[in-house]
Amino acid sequence: MTDLSAVKAALKSQRIETPSWGYGNSGTRFKVFRQAGVPRDPYEKLDDAAQVQAATGVAPVVSLHIPWDRVDDFAELGTHAKKHGLTLGAINSNVFQDDDFKLGSVTNADPAIRRKALDHLLECVDIMDQTGSRDLKLWFSDGTNYPGQDDIRARQDRLAEALAAVYERLGDDQRMLLEYKLFEPAFYTTDVPDWGTSYAHCLKLGPKAQVVVDTGHHAPGTNIEFIVAFLLREKKLGGFDFNSRFYADDDLMVGSADPFQLFRILHEVAKNNGLAAETGVAFMLDQCHNIEAKIPAVIRSVMNVQEATAKALLVDLDALTAGQRSGDVLAANAVLMDAYNTDVRPLLAEIRQEQGLNPDPMAAYRDSRWQQQIVAGRVGGEQAGWGA
Amino acid sequence: MTDLSAVKAALKSQRIETPSWGYGNSGTRFKVFRQAGVPRDPYEKLDDAAQVQAATGVAPVVSLHIPWDRVDDFAELGTHAKKHGLTLGAINSNVFQDDDFKLGSVTNADPAIRRKALDHLLECVDIMDQTGSRDLKLWFSDGTNYPGQDDIRARQDRLAEALAAVYERLGDDQRMLLEYKLFEPAFYTTDVPDWGTSYAHCLKLGPKAQVVVDTGHHAPGTNIEFIVAFLLREKKLGGFDFNSRFYADDDLMVGSADPFQLFRILHEVAKNNGLAAETGVAFMLDQCHNIEAKIPAVIRSVMNVQEATAKALLVDLDALTAGQRSGDVLAANAVLMDAYNTDVRPLLAEIRQEQGLNPDPMAAYRDSRWQQQIVAGRVGGEQAGWGA
Amino acid sequence: MTDLSAVKAALKSQRIETPSWGYGNSGTRFKVFRQAGVPRDPYEKLDDAAQVQAATGVAPVVSLHIPWDRVDDFAELGTHAKKHGLTLGAINSNVFQDDDFKLGSVTNADPAIRRKALDHLLECVDIMDQTGSRDLKLWFSDGTNYPGQDDIRARQDRLAEALAAVYERLGDDQRMLLEYKLFEPAFYTTDVPDWGTSYAHCLKLGPKAQVVVDTGHHAPGTNIEFIVAFLLREKKLGGFDFNSRFYADDDLMVGSADPFQLFRILHEVAKNNGLAAETGVAFMLDQCHNIEAKIPAVIRSVMNVQEATAKALLVDLDALTAGQRSGDVLAANAVLMDAYNTDVRPLLAEIRQEQGLNPDPMAAYRDSRWQQQIVAGRVGGEQAGWGA
Amino acid sequence: MTDLSAVKAALKSQRIETPSWGYGNSGTRFKVFRQAGVPRDPYEKLDDAAQVQAATGVAPVVSLHIPWDRVDDFAELGTHAKKHGLTLGAINSNVFQDDDFKLGSVTNADPAIRRKALDHLLECVDIMDQTGSRDLKLWFSDGTNYPGQDDIRARQDRLAEALAAVYERLGDDQRMLLEYKLFEPAFYTTDVPDWGTSYAHCLKLGPKAQVVVDTGHHAPGTNIEFIVAFLLREKKLGGFDFNSRFYADDDLMVGSADPFQLFRILHEVAKNNGLAAETGVAFMLDQCHNIEAKIPAVIRSVMNVQEATAKALLVDLDALTAGQRSGDVLAANAVLMDAYNTDVRPLLAEIRQEQGLNPDPMAAYRDSRWQQQIVAGRVGGEQAGWGA
Repeated sequence: MTDLSAVKAALKSQRIETPSWGYGNSGTRFKVFRQAGVPRDPYEKLDDAAQVQAATGVAPVVSLHIPWDRVDDFAELGTHAKKHGLTLGAINSNVFQDDDFKLGSVTNADPAIRRKALDHLLECVDIMDQTGSRDLKLWFSDGTNYPGQDDIRARQDRLAEALAAVYERLGDDQRMLLEYKLFEPAFYTTDVPDWGTSYAHCLKLGPKAQVVVDTGHHAPGTNIEFIVAFLLREKKLGGFDFNSRFYADDDLMVGSADPFQLFRILHEVAKNNGLAAETGVAFMLDQCHNIEAKIPAVIRSVMNVQEATAKALLVDLDALTAGQRSGDVLAANAVLMDAYNTDVRPLLAEIRQEQGLNPDPMAAYRDSRWQQQIVAGRVGGEQAGWGA
Repeated sequence: MTDLSAVKAALKSQRIETPSWGYGNSGTRFKVFRQAGVPRDPYEKLDDAAQVQAATGVAPVVSLHIPWDRVDDFAELGTHAKKHGLTLGAINSNVFQDDDFKLGSVTNADPAIRRKALDHLLECVDIMDQTGSRDLKLWFSDGTNYPGQDDIRARQDRLAEALAAVYERLGDDQRMLLEYKLFEPAFYTTDVPDWGTSYAHCLKLGPKAQVVVDTGHHAPGTNIEFIVAFLLREKKLGGFDFNSRFYADDDLMVGSADPFQLFRILHEVAKNNGLAAETGVAFMLDQCHNIEAKIPAVIRSVMNVQEATAKALLVDLDALTAGQRSGDVLAANAVLMDAYNTDVRPLLAEIRQEQGLNPDPMAAYRDSRWQQQIVAGRVGGEQAGWGA
Repeated sequence: MTDLSAVKAALKSQRIETPSWGYGNSGTRFKVFRQAGVPRDPYEKLDDAAQVQAATGVAPVVSLHIPWDRVDDFAELGTHAKKHGLTLGAINSNVFQDDDFKLGSVTNADPAIRRKALDHLLECVDIMDQTGSRDLKLWFSDGTNYPGQDDIRARQDRLAEALAAVYERLGDDQRMLLEYKLFEPAFYTTDVPDWGTSYAHCLKLGPKAQVVVDTGHHAPGTNIEFIVAFLLREKKLGGFDFNSRFYADDDLMVGSADPFQLFRILHEVAKNNGLAAETGVAFMLDQCHNIEAKIPAVIRSVMNVQEATAKALLVDLDALTAGQRSGDVLAANAVLMDAYNTDVRPLLAEIRQEQGLNPDPMAAYRDSRWQQQIVAGRVGGEQAGWGA
Repeated sequence: MTDLSAVKAALKSQRIETPSWGYGNSGTRFKVFRQAGVPRDPYEKLDDAAQVQAATGVAPVVSLHIPWDRVDDFAELGTHAKKHGLTLGAINSNVFQDDDFKLGSVTNADPAIRRKALDHLLECVDIMDQTGSRDLKLWFSDGTNYPGQDDIRARQDRLAEALAAVYERLGDDQRMLLEYKLFEPAFYTTDVPDWGTSYAHCLKLGPKAQVVVDTGHHAPGTNIEFIVAFLLREKKLGGFDFNSRFYADDDLMVGSADPFQLFRILHEVAKNNGLAAETGVAFMLDQCHNIEAKIPAVIRSVMNVQEATAKALLVDLDALTAGQRSGDVLAANAVLMDAYNTDVRPLLAEIRQEQGLNPDPMAAYRDSRWQQQIVAGRVGGEQAGWGA
């Protein structure tokens, strides 16, 4: 039997980190469609994130992306965040948009370019010192488009060297989260293409280096929850970049393409103590709202993670284990499906009311009339985007 | 036994169409890396295409993309082309970059937007009248990102209506080539996702509507040469958009990712009379040279198509048929592999010399010093790109 | 607003066809694990199917597979079925297990083998005359393993010829359902690999030829509900072979791998009048219960289809259309998700009680103690299987 | 510049291991088509392998599979092998065909079954002591078909325990090669699904545990040569199970589906010293010849590996490195393609003649008339197969 008060407590204490760039414009290589009211600077992004926190109560942390969110005074930005009940979360490095990085950043054949890339990474740690961020999230677009273009092994050597330098620079309470991705923008080899590569590097670096799982970065057919369970067993799961996809790295709202998969992932997290704060799993969103309204999309995504978490917490683990131990395939599967098939929306509404929130976050946002305000008010200036 | 003079004649008469946008800048959603010397307008794109034709002798046709290649006077552009020994090829429509098309063009729920999209398509036919182009290539990015976003069936009705209106407008010597694509930029449904959808629409429209096969637009595992053989049997193969990929629509140089697949495709083309001009198969490139030098990449791509075609022509069809008829799997396969394993570069060098060309097109381009000239000369102005 | 009584009526009138071979042994190429109590002949398979119908009330039809279910007297088998409240459903042909069919059946290069295959198909129609079956389900394993092994186009010619001969033989109330499959057991080309191929053949044959969609037979990433909607629009959807998969043609219980996909498929069916008897969509299961208890697995599968159908019927189509028309992506998506997130198990329990059934079909079967009975009673003889 | 005598020496010293089961019957879950002349026991399998060695000169090692190849006296089998110029190679364990292993072998929830599985693995080491084999190849079909069926993490614990016990038992000159596979026969989770999982276990076990790469065991889109390069860098590449595929684990002849991929793999091997005997990379075939003649198919496969190796050895590494260092994408790619596009068949014919072999191994086998002899002679008895 599941203890409902424990479920509620777990749901109330969950923290979902939203990405600053999710509030800005994004798109595909074919077109970035701009939306009215989009923030013009990091301060306005935090203003939008504050709306998500106001509506959901579980999203008080905001990831930053450097250089997109570079400001003169990060302390001031932190104060701005605090004023809205927010804290600054993971610092995401960007070594893929400078012209020098066309053929790679830390894995580039040219040592001067590698040095430039490393300097950026070290600068990100400097920023972490100012923002009080725990996590440095490293995603490298490095790779090649054509067979023979560069030496696969040499690039691993260069990667290892850069990671070691960054690791060395980390403070006691700081971590490095190494992201992997199958492809895009590199179309032949990617230097960190899968969890195995990330894991192998993190293992050598030490305990402050961990793997981050972006749910859209796998080959078709990959069982993501297996990876999650494996990394938790190895104490190497640093966190998630949540989003969803039907095809490749589509970056749709988490839970929108395969809600059952999201539930299975959170089932492994919950079962393996991954929801406990001390485990250190960061629940981050990393999405693109190319065609839908951005703030409501983030709210919806936060709700989707909450619903999957609630279902995962409702799994009757005793019954599950009994089914598993006895080899009763259908019974064990049924225990999981019972939790998944439960409508947890009433439970979450109840929790929100207990926390003094509107039981319906989407309605809360609608009622705030924030959208009308930013559409009217954010006129002029340059809208935030990816700068691609 | 293969008749070598017939092989040579076929190779000499092959025509490969290069895309104007292949000479401009392109990239991913993460970054467009600009290259020095890139054309600033359609005239300069034709100047670059002329270099490809000069080096290879089999690429005298250039596809245009509207609006990227819109000029005030298409007749003048045609004259410019002719001066360089080029002709203007397929007109590619673009109904995916106007803000109105965020949720679709010809399949949009809003009739006014559909009308606007249709008007663009009809304008493309007007342009064809001026350029003397035979083919209107239609690719629609139309689709949805989220389940429920729009009605799949209603969008087919709207698509059919628009296609009928365009078909009606076509002149006697004009064709409509309907392209399909699994995904991107739409990430849930795409309105023309596969050859079956394109075929079904073309069938209803009539003989002037044909399917175009982009080699990068399929689901993983799709057997493209089967589709090619099937469409040739149905007299519905209008042409190819050649490129190659390891993952999704990577748009790498044709033949660079899976040269054996390209050979198998051309084997079906050759065997089913698809190389004959009267069959009407257009051999077009549609690629992005994001990180490699553009003009040499196009030359190399043309050579790759030639090499695959040469190998396809060398298949000993009598021996192949004998192996197939007798059920000798290994023998039949070996006939195909013998042709594939042949080094056809000497044969192609010979053909080029017979045509008064440098046997090595890459060297020909290098020797022309065109690259140095455009890097030095094309200063200022706005480089051509996708305008995303 | 959804009319609940109409929803209930639709759910009560739904008919799900279970496959005779689902009650027998099955496995992979690595091993077929036998289970105790498995039927030894078609009569015992029907006895098991009767348990599924007794527990669910919506599974009164049983598909047969020839030759696995060949009996001397099909009229007697029909009487046996009727006695249990069952009717005999689709006849599934099998032209993939005779030694002669190693290199193909109706597409074999050898005309004598093609004739043999055709004779089997015609025999299946003879059997349909005796069983009163409406549907002949044709799945061809025909294809090749190696490039060059046989001529793709010639095989299409041979296929078309065989299909025409079978079509000609069909009675007025009989249909031919042509199944497609990406691969397995053929590993290079498959002669009917996708819906487009099946559709093209059915179109030429006439209205009695329709496409059947096996939910496990697609390339990764294929949007199955798009195909369903398209075929319904074209009046060419003959039915489903339901099962589910994470990888290839895994043949797991329908709804177990991606329940949201199953819901989306049934949403397209429901919205496009596919649940109406006159539309003629057959809802068949085609699964392998390799490691789980077979009869309970079939019951669970029937329930999964019911639950997905119930959710599909609960979609508020007015609200959906309003969201779609206004271009409100999030609102339209939310309407669909509201239905999906509903726990429909209470509604289905209620319906079952209204029909005099146990609200919990799994409990009903457990209480019947049928499993103990067959394990004890079915001793000796040869268990039914695939005969591979 | 490539040193041709070194190339020749490397090709002459390459050893390709053929699998005993490749000479027996195999098929799919739909049908195993038997072939005339197939061996009835391990002695006859070795007789067939001897033909492959006679024709190619580079295939003197034969992998065994236990229990398929269990004999009373392995020493006598070894003597039989030696008489034919063969040695016994890797011992392949089989813990997937006993009824007890339906829900897993070493990862089964039942400790008694785990013990039984471990005992089999230890028996395989006993056999290695008798055969003098260096390598124990471990492939586990262990996994689950349904979410919830068993505990992912607990299964890793059990796997680690079993592997440790086997590792402990290995002699000084023995190795354990741990194979991974995405799916099949397990269809939800597989306990060793990818190289990362295998690598992580091998790392903990120690230097005698290494990863084996089966070229058909990856998710679509996986870059296999990246894995090969990575494992060589980590000194963890134990060997290959060669075969090829278009879709899943099709087990076609190596090099038949994507010869360019095979070349790229062997390029990484050659460049990273993987062809040197001291590196210890085992080049094994693991294939199914379901429809083609078996012995010629093995010969052809050996030739395909040789051709890919020859091309890999012809890569001008100086020119390649120069292109890579200078960031000239097209030049570096061209160096690789030049080697790939070379017709190496004349070179290999020359090498064979230098070794006193028929330059054409297929002709050598045909001329031996062995096929006619075994078809006539191997009458009666039970043909070898997988025993599924």
